[in-house]
Amino acid sequence: MTSPGTSPGAVRPGGRTAKVREAVRAATLAELADKGFDGLTVEGVALRSGVHKTTVYRRWGSVEGLAADALDLASGEPWPVPDTGDAAGDLRELARLVVTGFADPETGPVSTAFISAAVRNPPTAGALHAFFAARHEQSAVIVGRAVERGEMPAGTDAAEVIRTCVAPLYYRLFITGEPVDEAVADRAAAAALAAARAGVFTGG
Amino acid sequence: MTSPGTSPGAVRPGGRTAKVREAVRAATLAELADKGFDGLTVEGVALRSGVHKTTVYRRWGSVEGLAADALDLASGEPWPVPDTGDAAGDLRELARLVVTGFADPETGPVSTAFISAAVRNPPTAGALHAFFAARHEQSAVIVGRAVERGEMPAGTDAAEVIRTCVAPLYYRLFITGEPVDEAVADRAAAAALAAARAGVFTGG
Repeated sequence: MTSPGTSPGAVRPGGRTAKVREAVRAATLAELADKGFDGLTVEGVALRSGVHKTTVYRRWGSVEGLAADALDLASGEPWPVPDTGDAAGDLRELARLVVTGFADPETGPVSTAFISAAVRNPPTAGALHAFFAARHEQSAVIVGRAVERGEMPAGTDAAEVIRTCVAPLYYRLFITGEPVDEAVADRAAAAALAAARAGVFTGG
Repeated sequence: MTSPGTSPGAVRPGGRTAKVREAVRAATLAELADKGFDGLTVEGVALRSGVHKTTVYRRWGSVEGLAADALDLASGEPWPVPDTGDAAGDLRELARLVVTGFADPETGPVSTAFISAAVRNPPTAGALHAFFAARHEQSAVIVGRAVERGEMPAGTDAAEVIRTCVAPLYYRLFITGEPVDEAVADRAAAAALAAARAGVFTGG
Protein backbone atom coordinates (compact mmCIF):
# COMPACT_ATOMS: atom_id res chain seq x y z
CA MET A 1 0.00 0.00 0.00
CA THR A 2 3.00 2.32 0.43
CA SER A 3 6.47 2.32 -1.06
CA PRO A 4 9.01 0.22 0.74
CA GLY A 5 10.89 2.29 3.28
CA THR A 6 8.12 4.82 3.71
CA SER A 7 7.98 5.67 7.38
CA PRO A 8 5.00 7.05 9.31
CA GLY A 9 4.96 10.81 8.92
CA ALA A 10 6.80 10.80 5.59
CA VAL A 11 3.51 11.43 3.78
CA ARG A 12 1.25 14.44 4.41
CA PRO A 13 -1.15 14.16 7.39
CA GLY A 14 -4.51 12.86 6.26
CA GLY A 15 -2.83 11.14 3.31
CA ARG A 16 -2.60 7.46 2.59
CA THR A 17 0.05 6.82 5.24
CA ALA A 18 -2.04 8.46 7.96
CA LYS A 19 -5.05 6.39 6.89
CA VAL A 20 -3.06 3.15 7.06
CA ARG A 21 -1.71 4.10 10.46
CA GLU A 22 -5.20 4.87 11.74
CA ALA A 23 -6.63 1.61 10.32
CA VAL A 24 -3.84 -0.42 11.91
CA ARG A 25 -4.28 1.39 15.19
CA ALA A 26 -8.05 0.82 15.25
CA ALA A 27 -7.48 -2.86 14.49
CA THR A 28 -4.83 -3.09 17.24
CA LEU A 29 -7.25 -1.65 19.81
CA ALA A 30 -10.08 -3.92 18.68
CA GLU A 31 -7.83 -6.99 18.84
CA LEU A 32 -6.63 -5.99 22.32
CA ALA A 33 -10.21 -5.53 23.49
CA ASP A 34 -11.20 -8.96 22.14
CA LYS A 35 -8.14 -11.04 22.95
CA GLY A 36 -5.89 -9.16 25.38
CA PHE A 37 -2.18 -8.60 24.82
CA ASP A 38 -1.42 -12.34 24.84
CA GLY A 39 -3.79 -12.77 21.89
CA LEU A 40 -2.43 -9.83 19.87
CA THR A 41 -0.73 -10.93 16.63
CA VAL A 42 0.55 -9.08 13.57
CA GLU A 43 -1.55 -11.47 11.46
CA GLY A 44 -4.72 -10.66 13.41
CA VAL A 45 -4.16 -6.92 13.08
CA ALA A 46 -3.40 -7.24 9.35
CA LEU A 47 -6.54 -9.28 8.78
CA ARG A 48 -8.79 -6.93 10.74
CA SER A 49 -7.33 -3.71 9.28
CA GLY A 50 -7.20 -4.92 5.68
CA VAL A 51 -3.56 -3.77 5.54
CA HIS A 52 -1.18 -6.36 4.08
CA LYS A 53 0.75 -8.40 6.64
CA THR A 54 4.11 -7.57 5.08
CA THR A 55 3.30 -3.84 5.35
CA VAL A 56 2.41 -4.23 9.03
CA TYR A 57 5.62 -6.19 9.70
CA ARG A 58 7.75 -3.69 7.76
CA ARG A 59 6.37 -0.60 9.50
CA TRP A 60 5.52 -1.81 13.01
CA GLY A 61 7.87 -4.77 13.32
CA SER A 62 6.01 -6.67 16.05
CA VAL A 63 3.06 -6.65 18.42
CA GLU A 64 5.14 -4.48 20.76
CA GLY A 65 5.54 -1.94 17.95
CA LEU A 66 1.80 -2.02 17.28
CA ALA A 67 0.97 -1.48 20.96
CA ALA A 68 3.54 1.30 21.32
CA ASP A 69 2.23 3.15 18.26
CA ALA A 70 -1.38 2.90 19.47
CA LEU A 71 -0.29 4.36 22.82
CA ASP A 72 1.73 7.12 21.12
CA LEU A 73 -1.34 8.16 19.15
CA ALA A 74 -3.47 8.05 22.33
CA SER A 75 -0.95 10.22 24.24
CA GLY A 76 -1.37 13.04 21.73
CA GLU A 77 -5.14 12.83 21.48
CA PRO A 78 -7.47 15.40 23.02
CA TRP A 79 -9.55 14.21 25.97
CA PRO A 80 -12.01 16.06 28.19
CA VAL A 81 -9.80 17.54 30.93
CA PRO A 82 -12.41 18.46 33.55
CA ASP A 83 -13.26 22.16 33.95
CA THR A 84 -16.20 22.33 36.36
CA GLY A 85 -15.44 25.66 38.01
CA ASP A 86 -13.71 24.46 41.17
CA ALA A 87 -10.93 22.10 42.20
CA ALA A 88 -13.24 19.75 44.10
CA GLY A 89 -15.40 19.23 41.02
CA ASP A 90 -12.45 18.91 38.64
CA LEU A 91 -10.67 16.26 40.72
CA ARG A 92 -13.93 14.35 41.28
CA GLU A 93 -14.57 14.38 37.53
CA LEU A 94 -11.02 13.23 36.81
CA ALA A 95 -11.31 10.29 39.23
CA ARG A 96 -14.72 9.37 37.82
CA LEU A 97 -13.25 9.34 34.29
CA VAL A 98 -10.87 6.59 35.44
CA VAL A 99 -13.75 4.55 36.90
CA THR A 100 -15.99 4.93 33.85
CA GLY A 101 -13.06 4.32 31.46
CA PHE A 102 -12.26 0.93 33.00
CA ALA A 103 -15.96 0.03 33.28
CA ASP A 104 -16.54 0.81 29.59
CA PRO A 105 -16.85 -2.43 27.57
CA GLU A 106 -14.80 -0.93 24.71
CA THR A 107 -12.04 1.09 26.36
CA GLY A 108 -11.80 -0.88 29.63
CA PRO A 109 -10.37 -4.11 28.22
CA VAL A 110 -7.91 -2.18 26.02
CA SER A 111 -6.55 -0.15 28.95
CA THR A 112 -6.35 -3.29 31.07
CA ALA A 113 -4.50 -5.10 28.27
CA PHE A 114 -1.94 -2.29 28.01
CA ILE A 115 -1.28 -2.27 31.75
CA SER A 116 -1.12 -6.07 31.96
CA ALA A 117 1.31 -6.15 29.03
CA ALA A 118 3.49 -3.40 30.47
CA VAL A 119 4.31 -5.32 33.66
CA ARG A 120 6.27 -7.87 31.64
CA ASN A 121 6.99 -6.21 28.29
CA PRO A 122 9.57 -3.39 28.46
CA PRO A 123 8.79 -1.71 25.08
CA THR A 124 5.08 -1.56 25.91
CA ALA A 125 5.97 -0.30 29.39
CA GLY A 126 7.99 2.54 27.87
CA ALA A 127 5.07 3.64 25.69
CA LEU A 128 2.62 3.30 28.59
CA HIS A 129 4.82 5.38 30.89
CA ALA A 130 5.03 8.11 28.23
CA PHE A 131 1.24 7.98 27.96
CA PHE A 132 0.81 8.53 31.72
CA ALA A 133 3.43 11.31 31.74
CA ALA A 134 1.40 13.06 29.02
CA ARG A 135 -1.82 12.59 30.98
CA HIS A 136 -0.25 14.02 34.15
CA GLU A 137 0.98 17.01 32.14
CA GLN A 138 -2.38 17.58 30.46
CA SER A 139 -4.18 17.40 33.84
CA ALA A 140 -1.85 19.95 35.43
CA VAL A 141 -4.14 22.76 34.25
CA ILE A 142 -6.63 21.65 36.93
CA VAL A 143 -4.10 22.44 39.63
CA GLY A 144 -2.97 25.65 37.91
CA ARG A 145 -6.54 26.97 37.98
CA ALA A 146 -6.99 25.83 41.61
CA VAL A 147 -3.89 27.78 42.66
CA GLU A 148 -5.12 30.87 40.76
CA ARG A 149 -8.48 30.64 42.55
CA GLY A 150 -6.74 30.29 45.90
CA GLU A 151 -8.06 26.73 46.40
CA MET A 152 -4.55 25.29 46.72
CA PRO A 153 -1.34 26.94 47.94
CA ALA A 154 1.09 28.44 45.42
CA GLY A 155 3.86 26.04 44.47
CA THR A 156 1.61 22.96 44.60
CA ASP A 157 3.15 20.14 42.53
CA ALA A 158 0.44 19.49 39.94
CA ALA A 159 1.50 15.98 38.97
CA GLU A 160 1.53 14.91 42.63
CA VAL A 161 -2.06 16.08 43.09
CA ILE A 162 -3.13 14.17 39.96
CA ARG A 163 -1.26 11.00 40.99
CA THR A 164 -2.78 11.12 44.48
CA CYS A 165 -6.24 11.59 42.98
CA VAL A 166 -6.12 8.55 40.68
CA ALA A 167 -3.68 6.21 42.49
CA PRO A 168 -6.28 4.65 44.85
CA LEU A 169 -8.35 3.63 41.82
CA TYR A 170 -5.44 1.93 40.04
CA TYR A 171 -4.38 0.33 43.34
CA ARG A 172 -7.80 -1.29 43.70
CA LEU A 173 -8.09 -2.25 40.03
CA PHE A 174 -4.61 -3.71 39.48
CA ILE A 175 -3.10 -4.58 42.86
CA THR A 176 -5.73 -5.50 45.46
CA GLY A 177 -8.56 -6.46 43.08
CA GLU A 178 -11.08 -4.41 45.06
CA PRO A 179 -14.08 -2.82 43.35
CA VAL A 180 -14.19 0.83 42.26
CA ASP A 181 -17.26 3.01 41.86
CA GLU A 182 -18.25 6.65 41.96
CA ALA A 183 -18.06 6.79 45.77
CA VAL A 184 -14.52 5.44 45.71
CA ALA A 185 -13.62 8.00 43.02
CA ASP A 186 -15.13 10.87 45.00
CA ARG A 187 -13.25 9.86 48.15
CA ALA A 188 -9.94 9.64 46.26
CA ALA A 189 -10.56 13.12 44.82
CA ALA A 190 -11.47 14.53 48.24
CA ALA A 191 -8.32 13.02 49.75
CA ALA A 192 -6.10 14.58 47.05
CA LEU A 193 -7.77 17.96 47.57
CA ALA A 194 -7.47 17.84 51.37
CA ALA A 195 -3.78 16.94 51.11
CA ALA A 196 -3.16 19.71 48.55
CA ARG A 197 -4.95 22.27 50.74
CA ALA A 198 -2.85 21.16 53.72
CA GLY A 199 0.27 21.98 51.69
CA VAL A 200 1.52 18.39 51.37
CA PHE A 201 2.49 18.89 47.71
CA THR A 202 4.37 22.19 47.98
CA GLY A 203 8.11 22.54 48.34
CA GLY A 204 10.01 19.27 48.71
CA MET B 1 8.02 -38.26 51.61
CA THR B 2 4.41 -38.39 52.91
CA SER B 3 1.64 -40.94 52.57
CA PRO B 4 -0.58 -40.51 49.54
CA GLY B 5 -3.56 -38.38 50.37
CA THR B 6 -1.90 -36.58 53.26
CA SER B 7 -3.05 -32.99 53.14
CA PRO B 8 -1.25 -29.96 54.58
CA GLY B 9 -2.16 -29.58 58.25
CA ALA B 10 -3.05 -33.25 58.72
CA VAL B 11 0.25 -33.75 60.52
CA ARG B 12 1.29 -31.85 63.66
CA PRO B 13 2.77 -28.36 63.08
CA GLY B 14 6.52 -28.58 62.90
CA GLY B 15 6.23 -32.18 61.75
CA ARG B 16 7.26 -33.64 58.45
CA THR B 17 4.35 -32.14 56.52
CA ALA B 18 5.05 -28.64 57.80
CA LYS B 19 8.71 -29.05 56.89
CA VAL B 20 7.85 -30.14 53.35
CA ARG B 21 5.46 -27.24 52.97
CA GLU B 22 8.09 -24.78 54.18
CA ALA B 23 10.78 -26.27 51.90
CA VAL B 24 8.45 -26.07 48.90
CA ARG B 25 7.45 -22.53 49.78
CA ALA B 26 11.08 -21.38 50.16
CA ALA B 27 11.89 -22.98 46.81
CA THR B 28 8.86 -21.30 45.19
CA LEU B 29 9.95 -17.86 46.41
CA ALA B 30 13.55 -18.44 45.32
CA GLU B 31 12.43 -19.59 41.87
CA LEU B 32 10.14 -16.56 41.54
CA ALA B 33 12.98 -14.23 42.53
CA ASP B 34 15.31 -15.81 39.97
CA LYS B 35 12.98 -16.44 37.05
CA GLY B 36 9.70 -14.56 37.58
CA PHE B 37 6.28 -16.16 37.34
CA ASP B 38 6.78 -17.09 33.67
CA GLY B 39 9.81 -19.15 34.66
CA LEU B 40 8.14 -20.90 37.61
CA THR B 41 7.74 -24.66 37.07
CA VAL B 42 6.76 -27.57 39.31
CA GLU B 43 9.97 -29.31 38.20
CA GLY B 44 12.12 -26.34 39.18
CA VAL B 45 10.50 -26.11 42.61
CA ALA B 46 10.86 -29.87 43.15
CA LEU B 47 14.53 -29.78 42.19
CA ARG B 48 15.34 -26.80 44.39
CA SER B 49 13.36 -28.02 47.41
CA GLY B 50 14.53 -31.62 47.26
CA VAL B 51 10.87 -32.70 47.46
CA HIS B 52 9.89 -35.30 44.89
CA LYS B 53 8.14 -33.94 41.80
CA THR B 54 5.18 -36.30 42.17
CA THR B 55 4.68 -35.08 45.77
CA VAL B 56 4.69 -31.45 44.62
CA TYR B 57 2.21 -32.24 41.83
CA ARG B 58 -0.05 -34.24 44.16
CA ARG B 59 -0.20 -31.60 46.89
CA TRP B 60 0.06 -28.30 45.00
CA GLY B 61 -1.22 -29.33 41.58
CA SER B 62 0.39 -26.57 39.52
CA VAL B 63 2.47 -23.41 39.61
CA GLU B 64 -0.71 -21.50 40.47
CA GLY B 65 -1.17 -23.74 43.51
CA LEU B 66 2.45 -23.18 44.55
CA ALA B 67 2.10 -19.41 44.23
CA ALA B 68 -1.23 -19.36 46.09
CA ASP B 69 0.15 -21.43 48.97
CA ALA B 70 3.23 -19.20 49.29
CA LEU B 71 0.92 -16.17 49.46
CA ASP B 72 -1.36 -17.88 51.99
CA LEU B 73 1.61 -18.50 54.26
CA ALA B 74 2.78 -14.90 53.80
CA SER B 75 -0.69 -13.53 54.68
CA GLY B 76 -0.58 -15.20 58.07
CA GLU B 77 3.00 -14.26 58.90
CA PRO B 78 3.92 -11.59 61.45
CA TRP B 79 5.45 -8.42 60.05
CA PRO B 80 6.55 -5.23 61.77
CA VAL B 81 3.35 -3.11 61.85
CA PRO B 82 4.77 0.34 62.65
CA ASP B 83 4.28 1.68 66.19
CA THR B 84 6.31 4.89 66.41
CA GLY B 85 4.12 6.79 68.87
CA ASP B 86 2.14 8.95 66.45
CA ALA B 87 0.10 8.57 63.29
CA ALA B 88 2.48 10.63 61.15
CA GLY B 89 5.40 8.37 62.06
CA ASP B 90 3.40 5.15 61.68
CA LEU B 91 2.11 6.02 58.20
CA ARG B 92 5.56 7.22 57.10
CA GLU B 93 7.07 3.95 58.31
CA LEU B 94 4.36 1.93 56.54
CA ALA B 95 4.96 3.72 53.22
CA ARG B 96 8.73 3.33 53.61
CA LEU B 97 8.27 -0.43 54.17
CA VAL B 98 6.69 -0.64 50.72
CA VAL B 99 9.59 1.25 49.15
CA THR B 100 12.29 -0.80 50.89
CA GLY B 101 10.42 -4.06 50.24
CA PHE B 102 10.38 -3.52 46.48
CA ALA B 103 13.98 -2.24 46.48
CA ASP B 104 15.18 -5.34 48.36
CA PRO B 105 17.02 -7.71 45.99
CA GLU B 106 15.40 -10.75 47.64
CA THR B 107 11.80 -9.72 48.38
CA GLY B 108 11.39 -7.13 45.59
CA PRO B 109 11.48 -9.52 42.61
CA VAL B 110 9.15 -11.98 44.39
CA SER B 111 6.52 -9.32 45.14
CA THR B 112 6.81 -8.01 41.60
CA ALA B 113 6.40 -11.53 40.21
CA PHE B 114 3.21 -12.07 42.26
CA ILE B 115 1.66 -8.80 41.09
CA SER B 116 2.68 -9.38 37.46
CA ALA B 117 1.22 -12.89 37.58
CA ALA B 118 -2.02 -11.74 39.19
CA VAL B 119 -2.97 -9.40 36.33
CA ARG B 120 -3.42 -12.40 34.05
CA ASN B 121 -3.76 -15.41 36.32
CA PRO B 122 -7.04 -15.57 38.28
CA PRO B 123 -6.02 -18.14 40.94
CA THR B 124 -2.89 -16.14 41.77
CA ALA B 125 -4.99 -12.96 41.76
CA GLY B 126 -7.35 -14.48 44.33
CA ALA B 127 -4.49 -15.36 46.66
CA LEU B 128 -2.87 -11.96 46.16
CA HIS B 129 -6.12 -10.12 46.92
CA ALA B 130 -6.52 -12.13 50.13
CA PHE B 131 -2.94 -11.21 51.01
CA PHE B 132 -3.68 -7.47 50.61
CA ALA B 133 -6.95 -7.76 52.55
CA ALA B 134 -4.97 -9.32 55.42
CA ARG B 135 -2.36 -6.55 55.24
CA HIS B 136 -5.06 -3.84 55.32
CA GLU B 137 -6.63 -5.52 58.34
CA GLN B 138 -3.31 -5.92 60.16
CA SER B 139 -2.46 -2.24 59.51
CA ALA B 140 -5.82 -1.03 60.87
CA VAL B 141 -4.32 -0.86 64.38
CA ILE B 142 -2.35 2.22 63.24
CA VAL B 143 -5.61 4.07 62.61
CA GLY B 144 -7.21 2.72 65.77
CA ARG B 145 -4.39 4.15 67.85
CA ALA B 146 -4.54 7.46 65.94
CA VAL B 147 -8.25 7.81 66.70
CA GLU B 148 -7.64 7.01 70.39
CA ARG B 149 -4.95 9.70 70.53
CA GLY B 150 -7.27 12.20 68.84
CA GLU B 151 -5.05 12.42 65.73
CA MET B 152 -7.88 11.32 63.45
CA PRO B 153 -11.64 11.73 63.81
CA ALA B 154 -13.72 8.91 65.30
CA GLY B 155 -15.25 6.68 62.64
CA THR B 156 -12.25 6.95 60.30
CA ASP B 157 -12.23 4.00 57.86
CA ALA B 158 -8.90 2.36 58.66
CA ALA B 159 -8.50 0.45 55.39
CA GLU B 160 -9.11 3.63 53.38
CA VAL B 161 -6.31 5.43 55.23
CA ILE B 162 -3.94 2.51 54.60
CA ARG B 163 -4.91 2.28 50.91
CA THR B 164 -4.42 6.03 50.43
CA CYS B 165 -1.03 5.83 52.15
CA VAL B 166 0.40 3.08 49.92
CA ALA B 167 -1.53 3.54 46.64
CA PRO B 168 0.75 6.27 45.19
CA LEU B 169 3.73 3.93 45.60
CA TYR B 170 2.05 1.03 43.78
CA TYR B 171 0.78 3.46 41.13
CA ARG B 172 4.34 4.58 40.38
CA LEU B 173 5.83 1.08 40.57
CA PHE B 174 3.26 -0.82 38.49
CA ILE B 175 1.31 1.70 36.39
CA THR B 176 3.35 4.77 35.48
CA GLY B 177 6.83 3.28 35.95
CA GLU B 178 7.99 6.31 37.94
CA PRO B 179 10.66 5.97 40.64
CA VAL B 180 9.85 5.68 44.35
CA ASP B 181 12.07 6.69 47.24
CA GLU B 182 11.82 7.80 50.85
CA ALA B 183 10.63 11.30 49.89
CA VAL B 184 7.81 9.85 47.75
CA ALA B 185 6.85 7.54 50.63
CA ASP B 186 6.84 10.40 53.14
CA ARG B 187 4.64 12.54 50.86
CA ALA B 188 2.15 9.69 50.36
CA ALA B 189 1.98 9.20 54.13
CA ALA B 190 1.51 12.93 54.74
CA ALA B 191 -1.28 13.05 52.14
CA ALA B 192 -3.13 10.13 53.77
CA LEU B 193 -2.81 11.76 57.19
CA ALA B 194 -4.01 15.18 55.96
CA ALA B 195 -7.03 13.58 54.28
CA ALA B 196 -7.83 11.52 57.38
CA ARG B 197 -7.56 14.60 59.62
CA ALA B 198 -9.87 16.49 57.26
CA GLY B 199 -12.47 13.76 57.78
CA VAL B 200 -12.40 12.40 54.21
CA PHE B 201 -12.52 8.79 55.44
CA THR B 202 -15.35 9.07 57.96
CA GLY B 203 -18.97 8.26 57.27
CA GLY B 204 -19.76 7.30 53.70
